[in-house]
Amino acid sequence: MTGSLKKATVYVKLKDGVLDPEGKTIQKALSQMGYSEFLSVRTGRFFELEIEANGSDIDSRIDEVCSKFLANPVIENYKVEKQ
Amino acid sequence: MTGSLKKATVYVKLKDGVLDPEGKTIQKALSQMGYSEFLSVRTGRFFELEIEANGSDIDSRIDEVCSKFLANPVIENYKVEKQ
Repeated sequence: MTGSLKKATVYVKLKDGVLDPEGKTIQKALSQMGYSEFLSVRTGRFFELEIEANGSDIDSRIDEVCSKFLANPVIENYKVEKQ
Repeated sequence: MTGSLKKATVYVKLKDGVLDPEGKTIQKALSQMGYSEFLSVRTGRFFELEIEANGSDIDSRIDEVCSKFLANPVIENYKVEKQ
């Protein structure tokens, strides 16, 4: 038996208060190029997943993958959006 | 006169059909570690922007920044979400 295909998107970003040098660099560069109204830039990553629902609990499997591999729980938060 | 602060998030991802070696690598690694139900992984980046609304057309300014600096229009799509 093959399961149905589910889609989910995982958004990973630095926790509030954790410095984001990449975002800061982008913000400074924009400002120097005349886009000074961009006061703050913070960066993040996302992952679009296609998952074969095979009976096991998808939500907990996604959570496992996020906390173990896709995000660093020490400095990052993640959010899962299922489609 | 100082304007009000607006927030927007820009999502940048590879166009459909453009190979995503990073996502493929993650998918293979997950599969080898027992997460074989994750059939496909595609990666993207996002940018959280804080913008001072100073009267100029914010939407077109964001579009400029996206197409010139945050995304590579040859291989990437971007989506703007205003909060």
